[in-house]
Amino acid sequence: MYSKEDTICAISTPNGRGAIAVLRCSGPDSFNIAEKIIRLPERKGKLSGQAANTVHFASVVEGIQVIDEVMVTLFKGPHSYSGEDTVEISCHGSPYIQKKILELLVQAGARMATAGEFTLRAFLNGKLDLTQVEAVADLIASGSKAAHRIAMSQMRGGFTQEIRKLRDKLLTFTSLVELELDFSEEDVEFADRGQLKTLLNEITNVLDSLSNSFVLGNVIKQGIPVAIVGRTNAGKSTLLNLLLREEKAIVSDIEGTTRDSIEDVISIRGVHFRLIDTAGLRHTEDAIEKLGIRRTWEKIDQASVVLQVLDPKSRPDEIIHLRDKIKADQGIAEKQLIIVLNKMDLVPPGKMEPLLAKFRSVLLPGETLIPISAASGNNLQLLEESLMTIPGAYSTRENDVIITNVRHFEALTRALEALTRATNGLNNRLPDDLLSQDIREALHYLGEITGEITNDEVLGNIFKNFCIGK
Amino acid sequence: MYSKEDTICAISTPNGRGAIAVLRCSGPDSFNIAEKIIRLPERKGKLSGQAANTVHFASVVEGIQVIDEVMVTLFKGPHSYSGEDTVEISCHGSPYIQKKILELLVQAGARMATAGEFTLRAFLNGKLDLTQVEAVADLIASGSKAAHRIAMSQMRGGFTQEIRKLRDKLLTFTSLVELELDFSEEDVEFADRGQLKTLLNEITNVLDSLSNSFVLGNVIKQGIPVAIVGRTNAGKSTLLNLLLREEKAIVSDIEGTTRDSIEDVISIRGVHFRLIDTAGLRHTEDAIEKLGIRRTWEKIDQASVVLQVLDPKSRPDEIIHLRDKIKADQGIAEKQLIIVLNKMDLVPPGKMEPLLAKFRSVLLPGETLIPISAASGNNLQLLEESLMTIPGAYSTRENDVIITNVRHFEALTRALEALTRATNGLNNRLPDDLLSQDIREALHYLGEITGEITNDEVLGNIFKNFCIGK
Repeated sequence: MYSKEDTICAISTPNGRGAIAVLRCSGPDSFNIAEKIIRLPERKGKLSGQAANTVHFASVVEGIQVIDEVMVTLFKGPHSYSGEDTVEISCHGSPYIQKKILELLVQAGARMATAGEFTLRAFLNGKLDLTQVEAVADLIASGSKAAHRIAMSQMRGGFTQEIRKLRDKLLTFTSLVELELDFSEEDVEFADRGQLKTLLNEITNVLDSLSNSFVLGNVIKQGIPVAIVGRTNAGKSTLLNLLLREEKAIVSDIEGTTRDSIEDVISIRGVHFRLIDTAGLRHTEDAIEKLGIRRTWEKIDQASVVLQVLDPKSRPDEIIHLRDKIKADQGIAEKQLIIVLNKMDLVPPGKMEPLLAKFRSVLLPGETLIPISAASGNNLQLLEESLMTIPGAYSTRENDVIITNVRHFEALTRALEALTRATNGLNNRLPDDLLSQDIREALHYLGEITGEITNDEVLGNIFKNFCIGK
Repeated sequence: MYSKEDTICAISTPNGRGAIAVLRCSGPDSFNIAEKIIRLPERKGKLSGQAANTVHFASVVEGIQVIDEVMVTLFKGPHSYSGEDTVEISCHGSPYIQKKILELLVQAGARMATAGEFTLRAFLNGKLDLTQVEAVADLIASGSKAAHRIAMSQMRGGFTQEIRKLRDKLLTFTSLVELELDFSEEDVEFADRGQLKTLLNEITNVLDSLSNSFVLGNVIKQGIPVAIVGRTNAGKSTLLNLLLREEKAIVSDIEGTTRDSIEDVISIRGVHFRLIDTAGLRHTEDAIEKLGIRRTWEKIDQASVVLQVLDPKSRPDEIIHLRDKIKADQGIAEKQLIIVLNKMDLVPPGKMEPLLAKFRSVLLPGETLIPISAASGNNLQLLEESLMTIPGAYSTRENDVIITNVRHFEALTRALEALTRATNGLNNRLPDDLLSQDIREALHYLGEITGEITNDEVLGNIFKNFCIGK
């Protein structure tokens, strides 16, 4: 299914018109193919005769017709992105020219690359492991500083180097255990069970902490979900609009054309927050309103942060009620609760402190009260600072290793299950062939993460999300 | 106003997400600036120590944080697009990374380039003349094969080489004429008046044919305007939709994101046609309908081709009426008239030929009758072939030199006026100082075309239409 016998080509720069665009052609025949449509200045001789990693002014021609004047860069395998001979053509960025040169490359014998096929070849040629491949896609998709940093760290080797080292050690042990099976009648022990137990323990700990980082990693990738709860007349919408108005331009700028799909995401110093507006919460017998309230609870359930909007007329009880309800209904205590006391511009200066004291008196440790005026924008920054202190936002400023990929998470989970069985087997002195089988299974799943063990279906799933041209 | 003392930077590839993106940094300080944010692998040493026209794997860094792994290409002035030291950074195509690297370049001392500023520098450094500069913009904007070919020919020197040669000859003559003025009391003749007359004649002919090509050139650039005239129930809309449906995808594909601005343009084998739908034409006393009909005539006035849609129930007279009206009202006989006889699927086979004969009997030479069925798409190809035979479409397949730029057209017109005065002056033996003045004026306008004579306003107008990054 995945051949690297033929030569592939694609436009690698974003769609549309620009100053320049870049086409790539990679594969065993790429120099020959490029030579058919590219004329170097006469004194330079043939394209394939040029040194690797050099760039040349040239013309792209169709017969005697000059299609464009371009810069051509040559890479010789294995010292290229794909690991193969590669020609990059940097042309004028007219969609007409881009398309025309692509057609000429195809006519000259190249095949249109499928999504991510240059990266696929990099993988097949051993230039990247599978997590690095996935990191390339994540890197290109990353729209926030935090998501970018995680993808970058993963692309540069990240956690897989550690996994691979542990896997190699485990592999040695398994081989020894399996060797014992061959000599089963002689009751020898090649693999030190104490050391094996220590190793299983070490690996389990590493995988455990990686696996635990997944929730956080996913939150970072998607934006940290913040549910905004409160009566409409407390200024919930004004606050939402204020947050969005302040940041919408920035997010839109970063995200480019994908803005539509991330409605209501704000970015504070590179960390994305997904603002989830909710219907009001109160007791009601009305069926439709009940449905709305049930939806609100579902949304709160998805959120890491609950932002409760109150105003000076609200009762401090409302904080207690919401907190109790979150804990009682959902059994989740880890949600961060931020109380926004809005409309503070309406409070006379003298009454400010007593009012704040009244609300503060019901707060538990870790909860924050922020007096703001959504109408004037006063103290908005304080609210943003407060969002930045929540764990997801904070961790992304550290150099933690974080899993964001559901495929890795699943493989880690299965590897952990197998390791747990192996450890238990070891403790309970189960037969060696069962032990070996569990370890083999763990090895299999660990190998799947880095791509040492893979299949077409897995590759297909990974590459279907890639850009063409990468 | 136009300095080349500082170092400029920009994203040069199209906006948005892609496999890769390219940033450019050009100017005297570009190597130093790039060195602040780019780390080569250690064995390679410093960026500025690398050979020109080489490409290197490198990291873009912000402090100790790696922002991206990139390919960096070095060009040393004057052997670069801008004629200056230039660094090109090819990074992963995430909008976040593109923006980040741009910010880093600016922090390191580069300035964001204005639209077309790299090309401006190419002009200031004598790498391109002004028509070539304009051709670069046209090339990037060109969405059809014909427009592309004209821009390409202009970028490669096109007609300006000829103009420059003629201008140089004229300059020599003028100098001689002016030398005579210094010796006016001695009645010498340095400049052979016969040769001068021949030269003026030659230049006038060249400029005349260039100037005449402008109408055609503009048509090619904008798309050849085709007015579709006829009663709605003759199937005008069906035909329009058929033409658009057939070709919309192709045009949209070529044009990328600018599709919106070229509503109702079809492309047949690389030639664009602008389809202009019109209201029906008939006698009426209704004021609003009259207004509609006046607009229809205005649209017909803009068109090179009038496509009259009739059906089997139409009378051949309608052809005569339309033709007469076009000639009488507008005095323009050069419009191509194509008669489309629609709904031929409704005509029984036996009645087909007599019906066609009836309509053909009123046609004049050069007019075409095409029986089609817009409903079934039958004979659509015949109609497209017929559109391809009209002069604008035809000429673009030749290697004619064609003016498309209104600035060139104006300068040519003024140069021609001055040359005509000079020729008349020569014939009427007007004083040499008047002759010299006219020739100087012609030289001035010719110099304006190539940019040998220019000013900030002209440059400003040219570059305001450029992409950032080119």
